[in-house]
Formats: sequence, C-alpha cells, structure tokens
Amino acid sequence: MKVLVTVMPKAGVLDPQGKAIGHALAGLGFGGLGEVRAGKVIELELAETDPARARQAAEEMARRLLANTVIESFRVEVL
Amino acid sequence: MKVLVTVMPKAGVLDPQGKAIGHALAGLGFGGLGEVRAGKVIELELAETDPARARQAAEEMARRLLANTVIESFRVEVL
Repeated sequence: MKVLVTVMPKAGVLDPQGKAIGHALAGLGFGGLGEVRAGKVIELELAETDPARARQAAEEMARRLLANTVIESFRVEVL
Repeated sequence: MKVLVTVMPKAGVLDPQGKAIGHALAGLGFGGLGEVRAGKVIELELAETDPARARQAAEEMARRLLANTVIESFRVEVL
C-alpha cells in the first residue's frame, strides 16, 4: 500500500528555501507570485494492506523521523 | 490561487535520500517497508485566478526551475 507523507514548514516559520525559489522565479520573469513555501514529500511502500493501519504507521513514522514537529507540520495520504 | 508542485525522482533514478530514510525507519523498528522515495513539494500562491492558466504557469515554472526533468518528474495540483 502506497502512502505519501508531505512535510511543510509551519505557518510563521521562516522558510529560506521557499524564499529563494520565489526570488529565482521572479528573476526568470514569472509575475503574480505570492508566497512560495518549500517542503518535502516521502513516498512509502508499506506491506500493510489496511488503509487505517497504514495511515497510523505513516503518522508514527512522520512524528518519529520524517517531520520535525516543532517547526514542520505533516499530512498523510493513503493512495 | 494556491498551486502545489510535487517533484519526485523518476523511476529507475537512484534516490539516496529515500534509501537513507528507509534505512533510518528500519533502524527505528518500523517493519513491512518497501521502497521509500523522497521528493520535494513547492506551494505557490499565484495571483492568477483562472485554474487552467494557473496550472499552465506552474507547469512552466516546474519545467524551467523547480524540476530537473532529466531525472525528476513533476505533477501540478491546483487547490
């Protein structure tokens, strides 16, 4: 069962990578750009076949390793 | 209009970050883990209000800056 964990900086947390991307896009001539935020996505292939338990496992992985919950929030999608 | 661009390594491209995450998760005792792949997600706030044009702009940004299309694929979601 495939699970996607998306990790983003929390609102209010400085995101220098997102700022750099925004500046680079503006430099390339892209207009009408507001805030840009950069996060990461981790695609996990789990042996678990129950969607609820796969979600639970992925949330536990996110809390323990994938996200720094002090400054990042995460969401889990079971595909 | 908010747009999410998700960039992942293409199938068959070595993904050392994903491998490292997989090893770390196994080391923490998580079992039943198959392939782990790591990518990035960029959240863009665009002034554009037409969903089709917002998607087009984001795809152009992905091709020109956000993704290295030789080794990465991307997908765009208009929220």
